[in-house]
Amino acid sequence: MGFFGDPRTEGILRFCAIIGLILTVCLLGFDKQTTQIFHVDKKATFRSLRSLIVIMYVNSVAAGYNLLQLCKCWISAQPKLGASKLGAHYDIYIFWISFFLDQAIAYVIFAANTAGVEAALLAITGAYNLQWMKLCNRFTRFCFQAGGAFLCGYAASLTMAAISFISAFNLFTHYSPSHFLRPKSK
Amino acid sequence: MGFFGDPRTEGILRFCAIIGLILTVCLLGFDKQTTQIFHVDKKATFRSLRSLIVIMYVNSVAAGYNLLQLCKCWISAQPKLGASKLGAHYDIYIFWISFFLDQAIAYVIFAANTAGVEAALLAITGAYNLQWMKLCNRFTRFCFQAGGAFLCGYAASLTMAAISFISAFNLFTHYSPSHFLRPKSK
Repeated sequence: MGFFGDPRTEGILRFCAIIGLILTVCLLGFDKQTTQIFHVDKKATFRSLRSLIVIMYVNSVAAGYNLLQLCKCWISAQPKLGASKLGAHYDIYIFWISFFLDQAIAYVIFAANTAGVEAALLAITGAYNLQWMKLCNRFTRFCFQAGGAFLCGYAASLTMAAISFISAFNLFTHYSPSHFLRPKSK
Repeated sequence: MGFFGDPRTEGILRFCAIIGLILTVCLLGFDKQTTQIFHVDKKATFRSLRSLIVIMYVNSVAAGYNLLQLCKCWISAQPKLGASKLGAHYDIYIFWISFFLDQAIAYVIFAANTAGVEAALLAITGAYNLQWMKLCNRFTRFCFQAGGAFLCGYAASLTMAAISFISAFNLFTHYSPSHFLRPKSK
């Protein structure tokens, strides 16, 4: 099946993506700090910012999806259970679904992470014109842990981009370049 | 060349993307409002929020890139000037470069827009725990115009996703499914 089509390559990448996604979720989930602002106790958790909540949900869903795909890779890596037994017709559907879901998840994870980083940058610098004050000088540990989570999230989204590259390869190499979506004859 | 491989399909999509990108840039660029907060005049422009500045730059670069690609599509649509004259070897390089750039730009536009929407949502609801106040009840017109800009930006990033789909098709249909990156024999 070559390097790209090999389910083991895909499996390893998906495993790395799952690790990155779970690390992000854990780092954000256990990130709590309480501090005083204007003599009032303020507690920062991931629930304080909508973008962090979104990252938690998106990354959990993506980790679950990758776990399912990992099972698929494991099944196709078994010589006796290989999906090819079910016929090339069935393979093509799987490739299309994988292609769309991988693309969508890669986009969504990348965008959610970037939105999180954007909110974090607002917390570091504040927005003077808009009367939003700097917060990371008060919630220092919280901000560092969130930064670590974003790094893991970006690693995971790079891995997802590579996976979506592979699934595009797996899908489109089965089509002829000169005809609209006509599968190649063997 | 079929529907996907047809440079006209790609050209039309790229033209739509350019329109969307330029609309976003114009709507954000001309978005200004001054209002009083605590008896101080505060002016909101796209320069007040880093994410809006990033959207301006990213979308301008993407529009320029799509304009260049539009020229390429126009050249390949001319029967006499077609890139095929330069040989299939040259075509493959163009396909690889287009594939990577289209993917990268689609990801970056989508992420930049989402970061902008995230900042806009913060402005609509505020973040009570973090002492960031609501702003859209004071800068209403500004917020509506920014919302329109985000809609155009999302339309443009959907178009870019379709374009990157086409460029993946153009690239990978030239490769064999069973060998790692080995071009197909005719």
